[in-house]
Amino acid sequence: MPQIVGHNYIGGARSAAGNEVLFSHAASTGEPLPYRFRQATAEEVDAAANAAAQAYPRFRSLAPARRAEFLDAIASELDALDDRFIQLVSEETALPKPRILGERGRTSGQLRLFAQVLRRGDYLGARIDRALPERQPLPRADLRQYRIGVGPVAVFGASNFPLAFSTAGGDTAAALAAGCPVVFKAHSGHMATAEQVADAILRAAERTEMPKGVFNMIYGAGVGEALVKHPAIQAVGFTGSLKGGRALCDMAAARPQPIPVFAEMSSINPVLVLPQALHNRSEQIARELAGSVVLGCGQFCTNPGLVIGLRSPAFDAFREQLAAQLEQQAPQTMLNSSTLASYNRAVQALHEHPGIRHVAGKPQQGRQAAAQLFEADVRLLIDGEPLLQEEVFGPATVLVAVADAKALRQALDALHGQLTATLIAEAADLDAHAELLPLLEQKVGRVLFNGYPTGVEVCDAMVHGGPYPATSDARGTSVGSLAIERFLRPVCYQNCPDELLPQALQNANPLGIRRLLDGQDSREAL
Amino acid sequence: MPQIVGHNYIGGARSAAGNEVLFSHAASTGEPLPYRFRQATAEEVDAAANAAAQAYPRFRSLAPARRAEFLDAIASELDALDDRFIQLVSEETALPKPRILGERGRTSGQLRLFAQVLRRGDYLGARIDRALPERQPLPRADLRQYRIGVGPVAVFGASNFPLAFSTAGGDTAAALAAGCPVVFKAHSGHMATAEQVADAILRAAERTEMPKGVFNMIYGAGVGEALVKHPAIQAVGFTGSLKGGRALCDMAAARPQPIPVFAEMSSINPVLVLPQALHNRSEQIARELAGSVVLGCGQFCTNPGLVIGLRSPAFDAFREQLAAQLEQQAPQTMLNSSTLASYNRAVQALHEHPGIRHVAGKPQQGRQAAAQLFEADVRLLIDGEPLLQEEVFGPATVLVAVADAKALRQALDALHGQLTATLIAEAADLDAHAELLPLLEQKVGRVLFNGYPTGVEVCDAMVHGGPYPATSDARGTSVGSLAIERFLRPVCYQNCPDELLPQALQNANPLGIRRLLDGQDSREAL
Repeated sequence: MPQIVGHNYIGGARSAAGNEVLFSHAASTGEPLPYRFRQATAEEVDAAANAAAQAYPRFRSLAPARRAEFLDAIASELDALDDRFIQLVSEETALPKPRILGERGRTSGQLRLFAQVLRRGDYLGARIDRALPERQPLPRADLRQYRIGVGPVAVFGASNFPLAFSTAGGDTAAALAAGCPVVFKAHSGHMATAEQVADAILRAAERTEMPKGVFNMIYGAGVGEALVKHPAIQAVGFTGSLKGGRALCDMAAARPQPIPVFAEMSSINPVLVLPQALHNRSEQIARELAGSVVLGCGQFCTNPGLVIGLRSPAFDAFREQLAAQLEQQAPQTMLNSSTLASYNRAVQALHEHPGIRHVAGKPQQGRQAAAQLFEADVRLLIDGEPLLQEEVFGPATVLVAVADAKALRQALDALHGQLTATLIAEAADLDAHAELLPLLEQKVGRVLFNGYPTGVEVCDAMVHGGPYPATSDARGTSVGSLAIERFLRPVCYQNCPDELLPQALQNANPLGIRRLLDGQDSREAL
Repeated sequence: MPQIVGHNYIGGARSAAGNEVLFSHAASTGEPLPYRFRQATAEEVDAAANAAAQAYPRFRSLAPARRAEFLDAIASELDALDDRFIQLVSEETALPKPRILGERGRTSGQLRLFAQVLRRGDYLGARIDRALPERQPLPRADLRQYRIGVGPVAVFGASNFPLAFSTAGGDTAAALAAGCPVVFKAHSGHMATAEQVADAILRAAERTEMPKGVFNMIYGAGVGEALVKHPAIQAVGFTGSLKGGRALCDMAAARPQPIPVFAEMSSINPVLVLPQALHNRSEQIARELAGSVVLGCGQFCTNPGLVIGLRSPAFDAFREQLAAQLEQQAPQTMLNSSTLASYNRAVQALHEHPGIRHVAGKPQQGRQAAAQLFEADVRLLIDGEPLLQEEVFGPATVLVAVADAKALRQALDALHGQLTATLIAEAADLDAHAELLPLLEQKVGRVLFNGYPTGVEVCDAMVHGGPYPATSDARGTSVGSLAIERFLRPVCYQNCPDELLPQALQNANPLGIRRLLDGQDSREAL
């Protein structure tokens, strides 16, 4: 059993000033684990934010390659954690070992991707407009622009990704890459995991000689509010519920100095199953879609919660096939008791709604979640029934049959913003429904063709974002290398002596990066 | 005298449903001009936002070169406006003709810059990660990302730039370039000017066959609130007071769907005058700085409102030189009566503060604004005295002498976010005060060396932005080509058939743009 200290992380040291004790729980039994954590006091939250602020000037000024070393070192430290760590994560989350191993690979891969971004240097957004002393009627000064980290960032761990969206997860990696020190609020569902990962980050920080305070971590219910309101914090990353995310947005907007919040919140990820595709491969679609619905016990932001098709005998047959597939799925243990309770409540609400019919799924009982299939009248969608707009966190999905293309368009028009939308379609379907893609583009961050939304690739082109309430700001993504842009802001230098410019903008182009030079791409020295 | 209809612009037609009548006023006399405008009714605000929403799907889908044509056409229409137009702007704003001619050139130049950005295509942010079907343990799908306009944008005209930050100004140009239809709220200070420019935009829209509703304009006090709260509006651009900008931010954040507001608000633009520079060219600095303070009657966002130096006999001499320079400036007419009243109040408050001393400037009287020089104790700055943190809109500036480098650092630390900071310094000064630049970078959007902050170049490298309260979001700029990014969001396509992809992402690269292809820059076809 690993040694867990349970103290907060502030400026490179451990701190346990308060008396309130928190316990981590075994996900499969709900029993407390023998790990005790100290809730951060108001003074500790303040100290953590101040430690980040103190680290900021030095950390942001490091050469990009130095921050890349740091990220690579965190990745190595994570990869080096042994089986006891994997066991611990599994204990706290009930996630199976192969999934945790996969998620760890994704997390260290993500850190290495940001290290590559730092070495590539395009995130710097270097732009140079040289002086035009002879220009009429007025000369132009020498103007140079690049981007710096916004300042200390508060990151909130997600329940459903103890590694990839938590301590050293996507938001932390993006913020550190941008040059922003982090104060991380550990999720109550996996605090021991958080400690082990925080230790890995601190070992990496020491090894690569990062400033103390580059990474801080606090435990506790309610400490997030003080963190978001702290004047040193300049941006927030969050993955979780609509209610929680919106509360943070409202707090951040009401600060004397408002700050941006990048909250990834609620998405039902509609899947459109079109006629020719059903005609060609209905059984296969039912099997694959069921697999996506129950993957990770449905505890993914991109879980397909709504399946829409055109009413037809083929769609009736598909309903039966999907029902049979979901009926035969084994129940799974959820992340924690409150996740299970919330899934039970959501399923109950669907059962009780007069316009919604239960199609398949074993009764909810005991400590596990059973997959559930419902069918709803399209009118509910068109009329904006909240039950159909809100994410059900768990292995449930709702079918909707629409009469024709017009009703389909109306149903999609009524949808709120989404992370993803999926078209299961043959070429003939796409020809016949050419109006769908432009409509979906306006609703979502990612459109998939003949795939399933779960399984989010970490790469340059990924968008894990979308219009509200999928996220609080459709202009960001929380997965993929573009995520760094959330934490950067531009700064311009006018007639700055070359030796005082950041390397990204110096005449010699010592970083060898691409720059926009007088309106043209260039890697040249000047 | 030009024919002014005075009706709102909705979906390409004119509308005057309400009875409330507004008048434009002659800036130099305060008398009403013979132009009558109809305040937009609630229904008209709704109709304007809906017209923009209706135009959005077609407008955003146009090839970038088509939107570039539109922007170029607006520029030509603006340039073609005759002397009566220039006369009208001058009547409404009291700005002299050469300034208006210059501002028009800047406005049409700005539109043409965005047309270039559209043709260059880097704003599209095209990224392609090709499929890796053989990858272990899981294959990678084909993922492609580019950026689309966020949707209809509300733009608020600024009092101080009837052309460059108004009807066809920077925010409108950036939004249109991004593919976002605009609803423009005309500023009460130059409504007839707004009509003439709106007509120019509509002529250009017709000539280039843009969808009706691509540009809409409404008049009236208080109509902005309904506009910002309208569900079709997806972002807001604003230039004006801190109070007005913050009110819009608060409204936008409290919407059922919060939206981003890019408000450029309050900045005092500190100028640091360092010893060696004073030693070498004190007289010249005083003359140039005085010129910047009174330029355009001090009615610029980048007006230098705070001048800081190290206490010394040289700084005492500089104070006298600057006082003499400002004393001899002729009073100027301000944009309108309320601007003058507000300047008078701000000058009065400086006079009355016990820690602030009046150094130079004729008494305020009549309908014109006199240049004023004050000096404040550095403690006021360090202690955050609001009078020294708030922008005085007009030709006034405040000197602060600090005892040493430590006090200088404290004073700068206490400053809020700024659009600009300026170092008037020789190489020896910059050597001796190497701590200043990193500190200023954290406070501002633009750092100038041996120049003056007024006169904002419109180019790729410009940043006219900065931490709050200079703007509501330091990640944006409202001048320069980067301004387009405020109104874009990324969308990702997974395994999308080539013929359905936007041109920016098609294999053949028909736009010939640079794309990030598997992590490398490329202009190649695939």
